[in-house]
Parts: sequence; C-alpha cells; structure tokens
Amino acid sequence: MTMNSALRTLKSIGREMEILEGTEALLHWDKSTFLPKKAAEQRSEQVAYISGLLHAKRTDPQFQKAVQQLRRRPKGLSFVEKRLVEEYTKKMNKWTKIPLSHVEEFSKVAALSFKAWERAREKNDFTMFAPYLEKIVQLKKKEAVYINPKGHPYEVLMDEFEEGMTIVKVEAVFAKLKPELMGILSKIKNSKRYKAQQPRTGNFPVETQKLITQDISRMILGENDCFCCVESVHPFTTTICPDDVRITTAYQEDPLFSFLSTAHECGHALYELGFGDQLRGTVLFDSPSFGLHESQSRFWENQVMKSREFWQYYYPFYRKHFPALSAVSADDFYFSLNQVRPSLIRIECDEVTYCLHIIIRYELERALLEGKIAVKELPQLWAAKYQVYLGVEPKNAVEGVLQDVHWSEGSFGYFPSYAIGTMYAATIFSKVQKHMPGVRGGDFGPIIQWLRKNIHQHGALYPAEEVVRKSCGKGLTADDFLAYLKKKYYGLYGV
Amino acid sequence: MTMNSALRTLKSIGREMEILEGTEALLHWDKSTFLPKKAAEQRSEQVAYISGLLHAKRTDPQFQKAVQQLRRRPKGLSFVEKRLVEEYTKKMNKWTKIPLSHVEEFSKVAALSFKAWERAREKNDFTMFAPYLEKIVQLKKKEAVYINPKGHPYEVLMDEFEEGMTIVKVEAVFAKLKPELMGILSKIKNSKRYKAQQPRTGNFPVETQKLITQDISRMILGENDCFCCVESVHPFTTTICPDDVRITTAYQEDPLFSFLSTAHECGHALYELGFGDQLRGTVLFDSPSFGLHESQSRFWENQVMKSREFWQYYYPFYRKHFPALSAVSADDFYFSLNQVRPSLIRIECDEVTYCLHIIIRYELERALLEGKIAVKELPQLWAAKYQVYLGVEPKNAVEGVLQDVHWSEGSFGYFPSYAIGTMYAATIFSKVQKHMPGVRGGDFGPIIQWLRKNIHQHGALYPAEEVVRKSCGKGLTADDFLAYLKKKYYGLYGV
Repeated sequence: MTMNSALRTLKSIGREMEILEGTEALLHWDKSTFLPKKAAEQRSEQVAYISGLLHAKRTDPQFQKAVQQLRRRPKGLSFVEKRLVEEYTKKMNKWTKIPLSHVEEFSKVAALSFKAWERAREKNDFTMFAPYLEKIVQLKKKEAVYINPKGHPYEVLMDEFEEGMTIVKVEAVFAKLKPELMGILSKIKNSKRYKAQQPRTGNFPVETQKLITQDISRMILGENDCFCCVESVHPFTTTICPDDVRITTAYQEDPLFSFLSTAHECGHALYELGFGDQLRGTVLFDSPSFGLHESQSRFWENQVMKSREFWQYYYPFYRKHFPALSAVSADDFYFSLNQVRPSLIRIECDEVTYCLHIIIRYELERALLEGKIAVKELPQLWAAKYQVYLGVEPKNAVEGVLQDVHWSEGSFGYFPSYAIGTMYAATIFSKVQKHMPGVRGGDFGPIIQWLRKNIHQHGALYPAEEVVRKSCGKGLTADDFLAYLKKKYYGLYGV
Repeated sequence: MTMNSALRTLKSIGREMEILEGTEALLHWDKSTFLPKKAAEQRSEQVAYISGLLHAKRTDPQFQKAVQQLRRRPKGLSFVEKRLVEEYTKKMNKWTKIPLSHVEEFSKVAALSFKAWERAREKNDFTMFAPYLEKIVQLKKKEAVYINPKGHPYEVLMDEFEEGMTIVKVEAVFAKLKPELMGILSKIKNSKRYKAQQPRTGNFPVETQKLITQDISRMILGENDCFCCVESVHPFTTTICPDDVRITTAYQEDPLFSFLSTAHECGHALYELGFGDQLRGTVLFDSPSFGLHESQSRFWENQVMKSREFWQYYYPFYRKHFPALSAVSADDFYFSLNQVRPSLIRIECDEVTYCLHIIIRYELERALLEGKIAVKELPQLWAAKYQVYLGVEPKNAVEGVLQDVHWSEGSFGYFPSYAIGTMYAATIFSKVQKHMPGVRGGDFGPIIQWLRKNIHQHGALYPAEEVVRKSCGKGLTADDFLAYLKKKYYGLYGV
C-alpha cells in the first residue's frame, strides 16, 4: 500500500464510521423522543445491528493495516493527518483488544441491567437491581484487563471518557475540593440569609417555559436551524451529522429546570457545531474528552446563565412572561436562582454542592472496582457519605443510590468528567470574564468568539488539558473554581 | 445446504433487510420532519450508504443460493414459507437483473432531477425540469429492458407497484371510467345546486385543527402510542419497525385538508399495523400492492370520513370547536365537504373527478414510455386533456404538469395504483356498508374488524386482486365505484 492509498483507506473507512455513528445517534435520539414504547425491543435490535456494522468497520483488517503502515512511516503526513493516525491507533488498540464475544455479552447484560434499574426505581427497591450491577462490575473489570492488564482498572475505564487523565491528578483535585467545599458550605449554612431562605413557588406554565427555552437556544446557538428542541425524559445533546446537532429538554414545575438544562445542552451543541471544518469526516471531529465537553455546558449553565450580568439583561423580559414573578425583584430572583441547598439529587443541585455529589460517586465506584466494597453495601455507604459530606440522608433508594443511570449501563469512570468539566469551566471563565459586562446588554458575541477560537475549533487535535493550558495558561486545577465560588457565594450570603 | 440451513439463511438475511429498510425509513421520516436544511446533503449521504448496504444484502450470493435451492426443492415447506420463497424469487429477479452501475446512475440522476423539479416549481418554468425528465425517461426505459426485454415497458414498470397487474386490465377499467365519470360530472354541472354552490370560508385555527387530527387518529388507530402525528410539507405514512408506524400531516387554511389527509394516512397506518404476526421479519410483512394500500387510505378518507353517517356523529363536536361554523347546519356542512368542483390540483380534488386526474397522468406517461410523445410536448398535452376531461385549463406549469413529484423521481407506472385503490375501496365498501349505521353512534369497531380479518392480516401472502376477490367475490372492477358515486352524488345534487 502506498502512503496515499493507505490515507485513502483510512479516510474512507473513517467516513463510513462517521455515517454509522450518526445513524446510531438518530436511532437513539428518536428512541428518547418519538419511539412508541411498544417498539422499544425492535429499536434495540436496530441499534444492535448498526453497532455491529460499526464494530466491523472499526476492526476491519484493511483499516488496521492502513493505520499501522502510516504510523510506521509518517513521513510526508500533515500535522492533522499525523494526529489522525495517532488517534486511530489509540482507539484501534481498544477496539481490537476487547473480543467481540465480550462486547456482545456486555451489550446484552447492559440492556437487561438498564431495564432492571428502571424496574427497581419503580419499586424503590435496590435489591432488584443489585444482581445486575454485580454482573456489570465483573464485566467492566474484565474489560479493563483486556485493555491494559497492568493498569489500575479505574484509570483504564476512566480513560474512555478522559483520555490521558490519571487517578493521581484526579485525587489531587478532589483532595483539595472536598474539604474546601465542605468548608464553604458550612460557612454559608451558618449565615443569616441561608437560615431565612425560601424555596421558589408560583405557577410557571409550560407554554411560556417553551418560549423561554427557544429564546435561550437562539441566544447561544444563533438564528440557524441547526438544532431542534424537542422533549425527552432526560435532556441531552446529540450529533447526527456535522450540521445536525440536536438538543432536547424537559419541563418541570420549576421553570429553572428547563431554562438551565437548555442552557447546558446549548453549551454542548455550540461546541459540537464549532469543530474545525478540516476535521470533518474523521475521528478528530469530536471533543478530546467528556470533561472538556462538560466544561462547555456547565460554563453556559452556571457562569453565564446564573450570573448577575445575565439577569440584569434578561429579567425584565422574563418577568413579563411569568405573572408569578410580578412582585419579585431582580435581586431576589437572582438570589433564588443561586440558592445553596444541600440536597439528595445531583441533577437538581447548586454550584457549591455539585462536586460533592460527584466525589461520593467517584469514591464508591473506585472502591467497587478495586474490590474493596461489595454491591450490596452501596445503599448504606451512599447514605453515610451524604450524611457526612452534605448533611442530608436519603430516605430510600430512588433518592439515593438508584438516582443515576450511569452504573446500570456500565459507565464506570464517567463521573469524574463532571467535576473536571466544572474545573475547566471556571478556569475558562477566569479568561473571559472581562466580557461579562457586555452580557448586561445581551451581547454574547465576544464570549462565543473566544470559545470558538480557543476551544471548539481544535476538536480532538490536542488532549483536553492541553487545549485548556494553551488558552488559559494552566491545566486541571481546583483553584479557579474555588476562587469563583468564594467570590460569588460569600457575596451572596454576606459571609 | 440442507433445507433447514437454507431457510435459516433466508430468514436471517431477510431480517437484516428489514432492519436496514426500517433504518432507511427513519432517515427519510426525519428528513421530512426535523432535519435542519443545512444538513440535507449529509443526510443524503447517510441514506445512500444504508441503501448500499441494503442492496448488498439483496444481492448476497448466499441469500440467492438459499432462495434458489428452496425454490427447486420446496417439499416440506409450510404454506407461508413457500410464499416467502416465491416472493423473494420474484424480487431477487429484479434486484439482480438491474446492474449496480445502473442503480447508482439512476439514484444520482434522480437526486438531481428532484432538485431541478423543485427549482422549476419555484420559477414556474417547465423547461428547467425538461432535460432531467428526458434523462429519467431514458433510464426507466433501460430499466424496463433489464427486467424484461420482451415486456411492454409500462407494464414492466407498473409491476413494481402493482404486481401482476396488466395494461389490458387497467385499460378496461379506464375505458369504462372515463366516459362514465365525464357523464356524471356533466350531469352534476347542469344541476341547480352545482350552479349555486359556494366555497367554504371562515377562520379555522391550526391549534384546533391539531386537536381534531389527534381525535381522528385515536378514532381509527385506537388509544395506543404506535404512531405519532408530526408535521411535514406533504403528509405521509412510514413504518420504521412493525410496532412503529408513523403518520405526518400538514395544516392549511381549509381545515378539511388536515382532517382528510389524517384520515387518509390513518387508513395506511391501520393497514401496516394489521399484518399477521407470523409474517414479521419477512418480505410478506407488507402489502401486496400500492393499489391495495391506497384502497385502505381512500376508504377511510372518502367512504367513511365523507359519509353522512360520520358527520351525523361528529358534527356537533366539530362545530363546537370551530366558531366559524356556528351558523352552518350539519346538512350544509356535509354538502360543502362533498362539493364536486373540477379543478387543476389532484390532491385537492373531489371523489368524482379524482380518477380523471389519474387517467390523464396514465395516458401521458404511457405514451412517453412508448416514445409516442416527447417530454417537451407534455405541458400542451396536459392542458389539452384537462380541457377535454375536466373543462379546466392550467394557467401555468405549477398548477399543471409540475404539480406531482412522481415523475421527477422516476416513479412511472405508479399513478394507476391510485385509481385501482379507489376501485378496491368502493368494492370493499359494498361489503361493509351494512356497518355504516353504527358509525352514527361513533362505532368503527365492526368496520375495523372486517378490514383486519379480510384484508390486513394477509400481508403479502396473496396477490392484491386475490385478497379482494376472496373477501368481496370479485376482482378489479369499476362497477362498485360508479354505483357508489351515482348513488351518493346524484342524491346530493338532486339529479
């Protein structure tokens, strides 16, 4: 094979993978939005079939040969092409090391486990889910050994989401975060304002919420038709092809759920729509890590959409649409939006407590994979940690260990990405906060420009931490986040 | 290969085809409903890729070998299995006779031709579309020769939609229909009521129309979630998997457009949801012809939803929702709904003139394929026929020869299915009209039961005409339709 023919093979099979991934994404999007319940089983078969085709492409001997040859003789390749070969080499390594029989077994067990998790939630009974989770843990341990028998199983699995991240680095950040967050929380809880705070009440019609979410998506994503906002039980973002990135949302009584989740998903979508054109059709047309992706969504959700500047701009319009707010001042609304309140449910919690929820999950799943704790101990350990870190205790499994879908699908090592993304978002914010005064006038342009230029366009050309380091002068650190929290929340609570 | 292993091959590859067809259907449904415009090209690539995979399965040598072997030694096969082998033999014959190079060329030309048709419609200029149509005609002639060099090209192409139907049979029906319909129309036009009739006016909000279409789909399809009604430019029905059949609709000023098109699509969907379970995952889980499919949609649209019995039941509810109708009596509304009015646009026309629109298209496309007329002559010939058959003349190409999408995509031989379906619907109605009194009380049960038992469950086990003959005692005939029209419309117009 000449270099050119190897490159052609690499690119054409890469393009096939992109098409199959997009088709699979559409099958999933549709499953969460329009698929009739009765057809769920049939849809799973369609997804399994397309996944099988994708796996065949990923392990295609022609493709492997082309990648290996280009890796051995990279002379004459452009920078992007070299990175492409590197990235495919890494991925191929995983794709080919895990035997197909394992992939198939895992996919069957995961489907059953997901269903068991759903049933267990309905009945609020962890024991219905426990045997499936045990099997999942066992299979994930096995998978880690296939990929790297010498590595720490947790680190090997985390690499799937956070390429190149190590346990040592994550531990260092968490070791700092945990006491600091508990300290901030304790200070807030002792404040007068905390003791007097009240939950939001009032009637916020869904039709009006829809109008607001449309407005938010136009603000962040612009007046294009490159996304569409339909409802699903859990909001998510998915890319079906480069110019077709979709977000979903859900409406609850509290209008801030749809508001903030839309801002969050728009952050993801803006990132997906911003990858450099020269990366299209390749594995580099992607984010280098889930953490960096999460930084983009959490940045919009928290740093922008929960800021005083944003609500100075937006509140007059917002209040006009919700009569329930007619007697609520901008200041009071801003405070209610940012109220700190240790709670049991991760996806509804505030900025201060968020990472404590993550750390609890990290500690438990790591111990599980290290064999230090057993599945059946999870509910008590979960409750104990919530008691110590947050001062609250779940009354049952649904508001405790059964709340997240991740483990049921075997996504061990995923949770740290949420915290990493939160750290990156704060570090990025330290660079762009000079543009926040513009937000008072509704101008998001300079912020979007900065993100596009410094983060989005690179796709997966560089590791996540390098992307942040290049643009912000430092890698993963808890410092910016803690400084941001202290400034904002000590101010809010007058402590 | 043993019989059992051949059967396994047949069924497993058949199942793969079903999955790929369903995936393609989802890509198409999504293209018409949610896809951002900007991603149209990328979606075409996804569709082309999945079509390619489907073609590979259809021409898989293993599959062919299995079918051939079972055809040669059918002993021991069940009735359904024998029919399966027959049906695959017929289809395989077509799939393998048309060279891949032709399929690919046609698919490219068709894509360009469709775009040219859209542009030509925008500019109202047939000459922009003519060169593409010439190319399409040429390729379809070539295709007919590939399939059967000795057959009449029109009959060969019609067989794609109406398996087993002959030109002789179609001609016989049309030869009767044409003068009779022109005669009925002439009688109606000379009536007092015709001369006094007025078009419907008033304000019919889209939100209320939506409520009505939801109600209609519940009435016909029941309280399941096996369908969802979203908007697309042209309403259609599609099956993504056996329990996932979807209809779309569109809303116009006149509320009867969404009402009747929803009834029409629900008729298609009810049929698709009614195929026998033992046919799942095979090529027999389908209708044997487009005509029989169309009979199901036209039956609900016309025989049921335009009936006096239905509106006796439904009008009080309908009028309550549209204040514009508060002064309109049930009788007047029923008449306005069934007004005969020769017009230029097929999809908006009445029951009496519908088949004349079809016959015009049939005569022109047949002459085109026989080389008796040229593409450039179409606009004048079209206008002349409308003048003679219907007494109206298009002022331009958009309300004339450019109105239908079919030719731009090369669907020659499709139009007769609309007329055939109309004949079948009337013949079926002659058997079930005894249940119409029940409709006055909102009871569709006995009609649905009859259709399920006599038409739907058979899928493609028997040829279309045989399905009708078995249940109604006769095959394709214009008699029932003409009798139905005369009874209904002579009554309405007092002639």
